[in-house]
Amino acid sequence: MPILPPALTAVIEALGKLPGVGPRTAERYAYYLVRTDTSKSQVLANALQDLHGGIGYCKKTFALVSADQELSDLYTDPKRDKTVVAVVAEPFDIVALEKTGSYTGTYHVLGGLVSPIDGIGPESLRITELIQRIDDDNVQEIILATNASVEGESTALFIQKQIGDRPVKVTRLARGLPIGVDLEYADQITLTRALEGRQAI
Amino acid sequence: MPILPPALTAVIEALGKLPGVGPRTAERYAYYLVRTDTSKSQVLANALQDLHGGIGYCKKTFALVSADQELSDLYTDPKRDKTVVAVVAEPFDIVALEKTGSYTGTYHVLGGLVSPIDGIGPESLRITELIQRIDDDNVQEIILATNASVEGESTALFIQKQIGDRPVKVTRLARGLPIGVDLEYADQITLTRALEGRQAI
Repeated sequence: MPILPPALTAVIEALGKLPGVGPRTAERYAYYLVRTDTSKSQVLANALQDLHGGIGYCKKTFALVSADQELSDLYTDPKRDKTVVAVVAEPFDIVALEKTGSYTGTYHVLGGLVSPIDGIGPESLRITELIQRIDDDNVQEIILATNASVEGESTALFIQKQIGDRPVKVTRLARGLPIGVDLEYADQITLTRALEGRQAI
Repeated sequence: MPILPPALTAVIEALGKLPGVGPRTAERYAYYLVRTDTSKSQVLANALQDLHGGIGYCKKTFALVSADQELSDLYTDPKRDKTVVAVVAEPFDIVALEKTGSYTGTYHVLGGLVSPIDGIGPESLRITELIQRIDDDNVQEIILATNASVEGESTALFIQKQIGDRPVKVTRLARGLPIGVDLEYADQITLTRALEGRQAI
């Protein structure tokens, strides 16, 4: 005998599929939606309904765009420097970089990182398309903006090899102490990198 | 210039309305839905669409029921003892009590707790209906299963007064040490209550 009506159980189960959402959290979300007026769940329902139909991928950068767009605004905008390309793993990494407000180049989304454990080889990433862009757009600098993880580093290494002796500067994001973190709490690897990358003042 | 397609922003905003979900968490949920196949967001969308239309309230206990049900199974089930009524604040408190598997009485949902700060007076709670049930169902015991908060206690007190001299036993949930919690970490009020309610072994 079910304690809760099936309409509510269905919502709890579907919310429980979200990352990091356990049964208790899913219940809390669902109970909230039951308690508040029906418009909140309707707005969310409609937004979810239109999600996949409303998005597409930029043909050049593979950033997320509206379904009716061919190319991302971050590529077509004349203010963006097409000769500088930040290479990121996922479309969402772009948001983090854009929030800094200090980057005016374009992007290239790989669609993942090389990870033998997960069966992701370099051929399943958009590296061929990146090399093509170097030639097409006369790219001067490739910024490898991948995570500071094993996968991020090995993907960066692989791309560097693929670029070969093309006349393009290849850089990567600086590793070092995050702002606001005390030296004594920094981990050894970060501190080692911060030492290696020390700069004259 | 928006960095993300509006279809995605709409989902992030709607998810951000859930309790305890900030912009970062909402982004994480939305990105997950974008990455996985479209069925996950469709299932959630459909469940949300049907939520409010699919639920109703039991005419007797005010527990959540399917929209096509008049009375909760927890009331109509012949195995449940109608002469014992656990009084709870919200429909979801029933789930917690049912999970114990050790309660066979019925429930009565007040629809809140007395809270002058939030403008909730006793007249907006389903107390009249509770008193009516005492007479209708020949209730022998009322278990006041409200929170151990100021609101919970004052609501319990008010109900006790309303019951007056009707021949019904009024009890409330025991206060004491939670199972698995060390005595030295228990707060003073809990420990005081545990002392007051000490039992012969």
